[in-house]
Amino acid sequence: MVIVLIHTQMQPDSDRAAYDMLNARMFEIVQSMPGFIGASGYASPNGEDIGMIRFESLEALRAWREHPEHLVAQQRGKSEFYASYRIEVCEVVRAYDFAR
Amino acid sequence: MVIVLIHTQMQPDSDRAAYDMLNARMFEIVQSMPGFIGASGYASPNGEDIGMIRFESLEALRAWREHPEHLVAQQRGKSEFYASYRIEVCEVVRAYDFAR
Repeated sequence: MVIVLIHTQMQPDSDRAAYDMLNARMFEIVQSMPGFIGASGYASPNGEDIGMIRFESLEALRAWREHPEHLVAQQRGKSEFYASYRIEVCEVVRAYDFAR
Repeated sequence: MVIVLIHTQMQPDSDRAAYDMLNARMFEIVQSMPGFIGASGYASPNGEDIGMIRFESLEALRAWREHPEHLVAQQRGKSEFYASYRIEVCEVVRAYDFAR
């Protein structure tokens, strides 16, 4: 499994409603991509947001990266919304579960 | 780089002060381990906590997993604090940065 970690800081003057709408549309598309497993979001006390998107393989991730509507959204992210971001593409090498 | 993602759900009746004290002690130790890079924590709207710990290698992670005081803490986590958890050990295959 591949996990993409997306650490984002917003531009202070960005249009949050437009960003949320774009994000919702991207979520709609990514859910329909072959090999998509799931997505979730988290917040840290210092204001950094983390997105976590899971795919079955690097090939499935590549198809999502190159989706035409997503390419446009990536450009809008840089020009309109993000002050900075860091994206880390990770492969899960093992996992452990515990439940009482 | 290796990232360990720790998704935890607490037992509802667990002693949060004791847990925070144990966590602080583990953070103190892990910072002194060779190959430790950093640690951060995040929260989701549904109450799930995510811990993210970074090491230079799987070998550095193994030494931390097997640290005697950490082994005791892992047992206390299961018996006293966690209702459930999922740990995912990930290798970063590539990373991208953007800043305006």
